Parts: sequence; structure tokens; C-alpha cells
Amino acid sequence: MKRIMIRVAYDGTDFHGWQYQPETRTVEGELNRAIKELTGEEIRVIGASRTDAGVHALGNVAVFDTDSTIPPERFWIALNTRLPEDVKVVASRETDMDFHPRKTEVRKTYEYRIYNSDIPNPLKRCDYWTVPYVLDTEKMREAAAYLVGTHDFATFCSVHTQAESTVRTIYDIKIIGGNNNEVIILVTGNGFLYNMIRIIAGTLVEVGRGSREPSWVSEILEGTDRTLGGPTAPPQGLCLMEIDYGDKV
Amino acid sequence: MKRIMIRVAYDGTDFHGWQYQPETRTVEGELNRAIKELTGEEIRVIGASRTDAGVHALGNVAVFDTDSTIPPERFWIALNTRLPEDVKVVASRETDMDFHPRKTEVRKTYEYRIYNSDIPNPLKRCDYWTVPYVLDTEKMREAAAYLVGTHDFATFCSVHTQAESTVRTIYDIKIIGGNNNEVIILVTGNGFLYNMIRIIAGTLVEVGRGSREPSWVSEILEGTDRTLGGPTAPPQGLCLMEIDYGDKV
Repeated sequence: MKRIMIRVAYDGTDFHGWQYQPETRTVEGELNRAIKELTGEEIRVIGASRTDAGVHALGNVAVFDTDSTIPPERFWIALNTRLPEDVKVVASRETDMDFHPRKTEVRKTYEYRIYNSDIPNPLKRCDYWTVPYVLDTEKMREAAAYLVGTHDFATFCSVHTQAESTVRTIYDIKIIGGNNNEVIILVTGNGFLYNMIRIIAGTLVEVGRGSREPSWVSEILEGTDRTLGGPTAPPQGLCLMEIDYGDKV
Repeated sequence: MKRIMIRVAYDGTDFHGWQYQPETRTVEGELNRAIKELTGEEIRVIGASRTDAGVHALGNVAVFDTDSTIPPERFWIALNTRLPEDVKVVASRETDMDFHPRKTEVRKTYEYRIYNSDIPNPLKRCDYWTVPYVLDTEKMREAAAYLVGTHDFATFCSVHTQAESTVRTIYDIKIIGGNNNEVIILVTGNGFLYNMIRIIAGTLVEVGRGSREPSWVSEILEGTDRTLGGPTAPPQGLCLMEIDYGDKV
């Protein structure tokens, strides 16, 4: 028995998110099925990020245990022949039997993609949020700076229980603009609350379009209350880019 | 009665091409339906480029005649509320009653998009051709240079009748590489034969991956025979970017 770690890329458009649900098309469901077809083993993969419906990934991570003799570094190729076009495994290797992708310290990087134009672009509809207002990326940068560091991000969380901590650390936020009407928000942190990046994106757009001043973000962060924050940006702009476990696995 | 000229953008993935066919989802069919819903008039638009199934556009052009009192510059907005997400009108204005988009001298620009990686990317599957071999863009540039100018492009045409001329003029070909594993072939010409850009892309990839020398393109061009050319690249990499009628309309 060994534990295999895979990196997974998917177009979230036609999935009801990552997490397995019977009778519903999910990324985990497709992976479980493909692994069963390949190895004959009944397996449920353990995912690092259980992304929502419509959210994409280029670098989600999952693990599963197998007795298969397929070389771990070749697993991804064998799995891809059994996976549909909208989900593919992009790397595989053996990892420690006690490695758990959600219980290990991590740096996650998400990209939130905005197509900033008042003219619709059908080729951007599935992986961008189209924002028709002129965005001031300098003001968005100024606002984003308040979010970097360790804070209680309760303002940027849709649903949470009292028992659960809403403290997280954001290491970096980059706002990349000026390219083909695109504004990219790149966020790296040690973990994110439910809808956190999408609320950050919705909040930064409020600032970028001039509805709010950058300092407003500092105020609402201190308020630790979801009702203070900006709207939740739509799922299709969000893409999980990378999960970095450093040298821990 | 006036003639309206529209610019049309679409994701070709779920269309059986531009041209109207009963019982089939086509771009023209959607436009005819939306115009009828808006104006009550039975109209068939005349398209500039009747793109194939799977081919995209950001700047196709069409015209139609109407008695509607909707201001020509507002037509695109009114039509978009009646169009699905994968086809949108991006501009509209009045034009001359004798302007015909296929019988007027023109410069057309197409983009052929290659995702150059041996690792699949589900987010690029609908608007890129994934090529797993390392591509030498400098050699592709050298090969492309032979195609610029006025030539008999019979080698780069899938189907044609004897009566039809296969002479066309290519004004420019740019090969843009080095960005996120993308290689973009940008071709501007006065018109293109059936599958011409896709055969050019397939041929330039043969050179880029080292299967052929750049000078091979000069030889096959002179041979004026389709069987000499490279393979036809798949439709989803192709996007009609712009149709420029200059100051003629």
C-alpha cells in the first residue's frame, strides 16, 4: 500500500464543485471513478481544496492509497486516458502515508480574473467576471494592502460557525492590469474561508470602480462582520493556481 | 428601410458554424431569431465569414435590412438581451444599402492559438490547439515568411472547384510566443480559402517541431497541391479577430 499525491486541473463550468455527491457530476466523483477503472480499487480521494461549483483549478491537490503496481510518476498519464476533457491530472508521485492535504501547513495561491469591458466577450464568459466599469487598479492595490497579514477575516466569509476560527494569513495580493482588458487578482495565503477570495474580489471591485475609498477596506476588516463587506464575485472568475506544501511532503 | 452592419463575437464550441441550417444551432440562426424577436421582421443576415463548426470570432461582420426605428448605434444592445451567452453583438451602425460584406475588398485578421505543453490544460481545451512538442518559433517565423505576398494557395485549401481562383494575398503573419506556453499565429490577408489558416497552422507546427525545414513551406507552396501541405489544425484554435473594410463603408 502506498499513498499517491496528484495535482489536478479542471474547468469548473460543468461540475457541481469538487466534493463527491451521488447522482451529481463533481471533480472528486470523476477522479474516484477513473481510479476505480484503472486499479479496480474502491477509492475516495482526499482533496486539498473543495472548490465550489463553477470554480476552476490548475493546481488542486489530492491523495489516495493504492496497492497498484503502476509507478507513482506514471499514474497521471494512465488516469488521463480515463478522464473527460474538462478534468485532467497534471502530475503524480508517491508521498508519506501520514500526509493529509487538508491537515498540513500550506501556501495556496488563487487567481481571480476580471474582464474589464462594457462590451461582452463570449470567449471570456466561463473563466472571467465581466466588469463593465472602469477600474482604477492603483486604488485596488492600495485597498488590497490592508488585507495582507494575519487578520480576523470574518467580514470576508459567507458562512461560519462560532467555534471555527476566522483568523487567516494573507502573504501577498497582486493586482495585475493593463493586458487585453484583464485585471487579475492574485492572492496567496495559508488558507481561505468560505467564499473569501470571491468576497475580496467583489470588495476590491467596489474600490476600483470608485464606489468606495481604499481605506474603507481597513474599516470593514476591523468590523469583522460579513454584512460590511462588498458583494461575493461570481465563481467563474476564480481559479486555484497552486498549493505549495514546501518541503513537508 | 436601412441597412445595419453589426460586429459579432462568439464562442464557436456549441455552434455548428456560422451558416444557417434548419434544426441545427448556428450563429446565423441565433442572429436571425433575435432580430425577428426584436423587430418582428423575417430577416436573414448576410455574414462576411461563414466560419466552420468550433471556430470562434471576436469580429465577424454581418448586415441586414430593417424598417425598425431603433437607432442603428443602439441595435447591438437591444439584440444582446435576446442572444445567448455564447454569441453577442459588439457594435452596430447604419451602412450603405449596396454594401455587401462578402463582395467588398477587405483585410481579414485571424488568430490561431496553440497551447504548447505536454501537460493538458482543461481551461484551454475549447480555444487552443494543445501541441505537446517543443516549438521553435524562430523557425516558424522563417517558414511563415514564404507565405506572405500574393500566391496560388491551392496547397492550403481543403476543397475547391476548378473554376474558383486559389490566388490570395497574405499581408502579414506574426508568430507570437513566449507567453504562458502560448504560441499565437496572427494572419492578415485579403481573404482565405477553405481551411486555409488551419492548414497554415498545421504546416507551421510541422516546421516548429522540427519535422520539416522552413524552406519546405516554399516548396509545397509552389507545388499548389493540398496533398503536399501539413495537416489541418483543429477548429477550436481559430478565431476571426477583425474584418477591416477601410473607408469603404
